[in-house]
Amino acid sequence: MSLTLANAWVLTMDRGLTEFRNGWVRIEGETIAALGNGPAPEGGEVLDMGGDVLMPGMVNPHCHLPMSLFRGLGEDVDDRLFRYILPLERKFVSPAMVRAGTALSALESIMGGVTTIADMYYFETEIAEVMDRAGLRAVLGQTLADFAAPDHASFDEGFALCDALADRLAGHPRLIASIAPHAPYSTGPAVLERAARWHDDHPGTRVQIHLAETEAETAWARREHGMSTTALAAKSGILRPGTVAAHCLLMDDADIALLAETGAGVAHNARSNGKAGRGMARVEDMRRAGIPVGIATDGPMSGNTLDLFAQFGPVSIFAKILGHSRKPLPAAEVVRMATLEGARALALDDRIGSLEPGKKADIIRISLDAPRLHPVYDVYSMLVFAAQPADVHDVMVAGHWLMRNRQVLTLETDRVLSDALQVAGQFRAEMNAIDQGQT
Amino acid sequence: MSLTLANAWVLTMDRGLTEFRNGWVRIEGETIAALGNGPAPEGGEVLDMGGDVLMPGMVNPHCHLPMSLFRGLGEDVDDRLFRYILPLERKFVSPAMVRAGTALSALESIMGGVTTIADMYYFETEIAEVMDRAGLRAVLGQTLADFAAPDHASFDEGFALCDALADRLAGHPRLIASIAPHAPYSTGPAVLERAARWHDDHPGTRVQIHLAETEAETAWARREHGMSTTALAAKSGILRPGTVAAHCLLMDDADIALLAETGAGVAHNARSNGKAGRGMARVEDMRRAGIPVGIATDGPMSGNTLDLFAQFGPVSIFAKILGHSRKPLPAAEVVRMATLEGARALALDDRIGSLEPGKKADIIRISLDAPRLHPVYDVYSMLVFAAQPADVHDVMVAGHWLMRNRQVLTLETDRVLSDALQVAGQFRAEMNAIDQGQT
Repeated sequence: MSLTLANAWVLTMDRGLTEFRNGWVRIEGETIAALGNGPAPEGGEVLDMGGDVLMPGMVNPHCHLPMSLFRGLGEDVDDRLFRYILPLERKFVSPAMVRAGTALSALESIMGGVTTIADMYYFETEIAEVMDRAGLRAVLGQTLADFAAPDHASFDEGFALCDALADRLAGHPRLIASIAPHAPYSTGPAVLERAARWHDDHPGTRVQIHLAETEAETAWARREHGMSTTALAAKSGILRPGTVAAHCLLMDDADIALLAETGAGVAHNARSNGKAGRGMARVEDMRRAGIPVGIATDGPMSGNTLDLFAQFGPVSIFAKILGHSRKPLPAAEVVRMATLEGARALALDDRIGSLEPGKKADIIRISLDAPRLHPVYDVYSMLVFAAQPADVHDVMVAGHWLMRNRQVLTLETDRVLSDALQVAGQFRAEMNAIDQGQT
Repeated sequence: MSLTLANAWVLTMDRGLTEFRNGWVRIEGETIAALGNGPAPEGGEVLDMGGDVLMPGMVNPHCHLPMSLFRGLGEDVDDRLFRYILPLERKFVSPAMVRAGTALSALESIMGGVTTIADMYYFETEIAEVMDRAGLRAVLGQTLADFAAPDHASFDEGFALCDALADRLAGHPRLIASIAPHAPYSTGPAVLERAARWHDDHPGTRVQIHLAETEAETAWARREHGMSTTALAAKSGILRPGTVAAHCLLMDDADIALLAETGAGVAHNARSNGKAGRGMARVEDMRRAGIPVGIATDGPMSGNTLDLFAQFGPVSIFAKILGHSRKPLPAAEVVRMATLEGARALALDDRIGSLEPGKKADIIRISLDAPRLHPVYDVYSMLVFAAQPADVHDVMVAGHWLMRNRQVLTLETDRVLSDALQVAGQFRAEMNAIDQGQT
């Protein structure tokens, strides 16, 4: 049985940015069968899209889903990681907590047109259950770290969790297991080497890592290993096709060239990096070197939202400020980063990231109802500088609707919110206790 | 007859950031009569706000309202001012065009919780008619410029337009006339001096100017006048209480000290400045010097929207990047800039910018329905990093509802949009002609 989405402004986001101004997309099962311009072909179910924009579901290649429960907590404080985040995580992160936070983040992601998410957290098999129910596509990364992690007391235990995750997700049509060494400084090169071997031994999985994020990290790598953190990670073998490195803020020309050679992708967290006061990643230089760079939200404790639209402004203006010109990173390229390049960064561009025959039917519909979107001289500029999550009208993953008419179909909104608020209720008291203990 | 908005989370945005977590606001006529915590006092009409946030209507202290018709046109091009904007304005700016564009921008402003706007454009008496109808509060600035402006062929004609505007708006309860010399480089010091005298002669009016925006401007002032553009403007007398200077990007310590001495305010256009690749204004330094700094959208051809929420991310992260820390410009200060400080920049803080007895009832209600806003540990962080125009539920100016339940009451949405699209239809052909003439 086929479904045709007709009377749409189809942005395929393929390499040539093919557009069908009066277009249609035909879906068979979970796959895009055909697309084109003009009247929709007959047969099967036909849905009129009312002239709205259809584009690929967006890809968020780096976040920490359960951390939506911490959103807005511990703002404007420099030592927040060690003062708040790690103590809170040690105390509160549990299977129930990650399920509640993941559901809240999944809801927000669907409502904002994000259909593929790379997550990096703890109790990742629990996260997988929620993501399976939500109907989203995901790369799910079990974190390995040397600071007392909530779900493993040793790296051996951490690797065992990765094994279990890979077993659980083997053959899943939308969920992919990933190993996620936290960062070079928090694992050390031996663990990175072991993680690289783990990836060799688990075909089809992915790798995630935080890289070149802080000055302390850079200083550590120089002091302890006499090289940059990028060089150290590359030497360990962990940077490779199928690895997505988050942040990549502190990179010189040699680091960028090295990263390009490895075949790894980058998750650019512009708003989160800016909010931390850390600066602006050299995205245009990375792209010129051939590195696939996607746009990511980072965890909601750092970036507050799972909203990719809210990243577009910072991503665009960072590139223009670094280039001292209006020209760098035109709007169409920002949308490409949020779709095909994000898919490339996750080594998923064989199946998603653009609307092309044979690819999975991960499709979002952007309503053009809001007056603030008009006039539309340049549809990509409209998406980058004017569109917002509220404009996302329908969301489909693998041929299944996750949202229609702004109603999420796979999660119960009220239940998700009340579960989240119940878990979050404990955190404020703990924050106060931390603050009192420190004053 | 009084109206009490009850069962609300009232953010007064007064100097002490007084909050009423279970609060009410009592309105008599166009004025806030009282506000407090707990059950609403009896008498008059009482409306239940369902626990939503009430806060002052936001202030946008710099924009070019009719330019919403150009939104998204001529993106990613460095010479856009002289290549596109000025030729398009010369050819198309007319009373009908400014009315259509202003209505579209007024609609978007209301829907985004902006209740006071400082506009700077041409045919300003036409703009005043639309703003009067929309029910918004505004400072309306008739532009003076040496490039063939659409509505005056000489400065004498420009001053005559200012006279007519001031006459027309004398005694208006919400609209204030303003003289708006375009910039020091495009008027010259003699016109600035004359504009300062005009302001002396027209009590109750305001002044608007673009200042220290581009490197070419800085070079011009040094070359022609041997001083900074800020020093030149200050020497002319145009910087004064009641003047709002837009951009103020290229300022050294001496310029900031000088600007503070003059009593002028600043309109910070973070997103527009960033999109132009121009950099980040030294907002924290200006605020430390006592300068009132509001948050502005700039014209929609530069910043694309009239959405103040979309500015909050860039405003916040620019300050944190300049300060290399998470600490600068905490979220509550960003909201203060969007309300009381914007009002101060426009010398309107005697009547708006905070919810206090005796001030005008310019009030917006932010719905807390969307899951992406929760949990709310810090209401200011929620407003800055998570809230969006779609969350603005009701808007009141001077005790009159402009929007209820997301339905704008003062403008006909469909008519505004169709008028705007009709006018905008001409522009694309002209853009193509410009591009062909240049290739």
